[in-house]
Amino acid sequence: MLRLSLIGIGCGDPEQLTLAAIRAINAADLVLIPRKGTAKSDLADLRRTICADVLTNDRTRIAEFDLPVRDASEADYRKGVDDWHASVAAAWSQTIADRLGSDGRVALLIWGDPSLYDSSLRIARRLEPLPKIEVVPGITSIQALCAAHALPLNDIGEPFLVTTGRRLREGGWPISADTVVVMLDGGAAFRSLDPNGLHIWWGAYLGMPDQIIISGALADVGPRIVAARQQARERHGWIMDSYILKRIP
Amino acid sequence: MLRLSLIGIGCGDPEQLTLAAIRAINAADLVLIPRKGTAKSDLADLRRTICADVLTNDRTRIAEFDLPVRDASEADYRKGVDDWHASVAAAWSQTIADRLGSDGRVALLIWGDPSLYDSSLRIARRLEPLPKIEVVPGITSIQALCAAHALPLNDIGEPFLVTTGRRLREGGWPISADTVVVMLDGGAAFRSLDPNGLHIWWGAYLGMPDQIIISGALADVGPRIVAARQQARERHGWIMDSYILKRIP
Repeated sequence: MLRLSLIGIGCGDPEQLTLAAIRAINAADLVLIPRKGTAKSDLADLRRTICADVLTNDRTRIAEFDLPVRDASEADYRKGVDDWHASVAAAWSQTIADRLGSDGRVALLIWGDPSLYDSSLRIARRLEPLPKIEVVPGITSIQALCAAHALPLNDIGEPFLVTTGRRLREGGWPISADTVVVMLDGGAAFRSLDPNGLHIWWGAYLGMPDQIIISGALADVGPRIVAARQQARERHGWIMDSYILKRIP
Repeated sequence: MLRLSLIGIGCGDPEQLTLAAIRAINAADLVLIPRKGTAKSDLADLRRTICADVLTNDRTRIAEFDLPVRDASEADYRKGVDDWHASVAAAWSQTIADRLGSDGRVALLIWGDPSLYDSSLRIARRLEPLPKIEVVPGITSIQALCAAHALPLNDIGEPFLVTTGRRLREGGWPISADTVVVMLDGGAAFRSLDPNGLHIWWGAYLGMPDQIIISGALADVGPRIVAARQQARERHGWIMDSYILKRIP
């Protein structure tokens, strides 16, 4: 029987690892590490660093595999994602079959938390036969962003909405909340909003040595954030950023 | 100069501690532990257990103090909270002055994450003189709930709303999302919704030995959750629960 642990590892700082994550990594017979090409090699490097730092079990092996690339030319977004999940599941299955067989414990180190804007749980459910799935929560970029700004996310007793850059751009300010967290934003979608009365708390490479944070009235700091994100992306070859917007009366 | 670390410790399982949290606890000269009366003594116990487990710095002292109680008879909710924050800030100041003086590092162990439905950051900002504030993120009950159910929180590319039991009861189903996380619900507010088409993933005492989880169509499992929550509250003397609702077409 196969057991699969999806282990949240936080969002860039190896010290965000929990004791449960360290235990789960050491309980694995096989740790799968995806290679995503050169652009995001920092992320594969973090996984290798974490394994090197915390693995004390001599019998745990590490297997790297090439992560299939999503076909961005597929016009139907849902179908593109669906096909991609099928390819990733096939890559996991092949690597597990080659390196472990049909019995044992497999671990995947998941950026952030496996439950938040991550597809590993959906991909895992495609494996045949279905493994026993265990989830170990990890610190998310939302939490790292709040910590970096020492910001309470919600106002007292008030709700907040977590959404994506695309949604914000297409739908405008959401109706149900005065606090909005924006994830997966490839293009500074806050520019599509009327900045009047909005404050922003922005961060990139959260928890990493290159962490950048900027906050203030959106009308004042919006252009600075756009410039900082452009420069940082050019320097690193990639960027992961997120931000919180609050409507302040 | 005073430095204050607000350290997220997760929501009940000592293994949810991060390496950064352990480092921050050991960097403290003084750890403040609030006593909340007998009903929630399990929570103070967890903080004591964590200190006993991870403290390796002989010079770190622990100071317990009686947490002031919020005046629930105050008709103006905001004023009640405001007064309570002032009393808690005074209790922190007094304990710090008595046990440490005006220079050194103070740590508070925060249930979950300091940025999520927690007032410590707001209380810390009332201290005079203002200490240098550092936040260490911790695993929240939302993450522990998703992990326990092996549930992806958001649908692919879709938003979710985090709100409170009171808001759900007073405002009905929110407009902006098909996934809603409900926190701080003292009275099973999901009963106020039409259960048709809704699924629920519920959990109490998440990460603790007494963890209970129930999931299913709200129409089917709603009454079971109400009964389980009632029984558990009687047995423990207190309950902390949260849940995720999804509108499934």
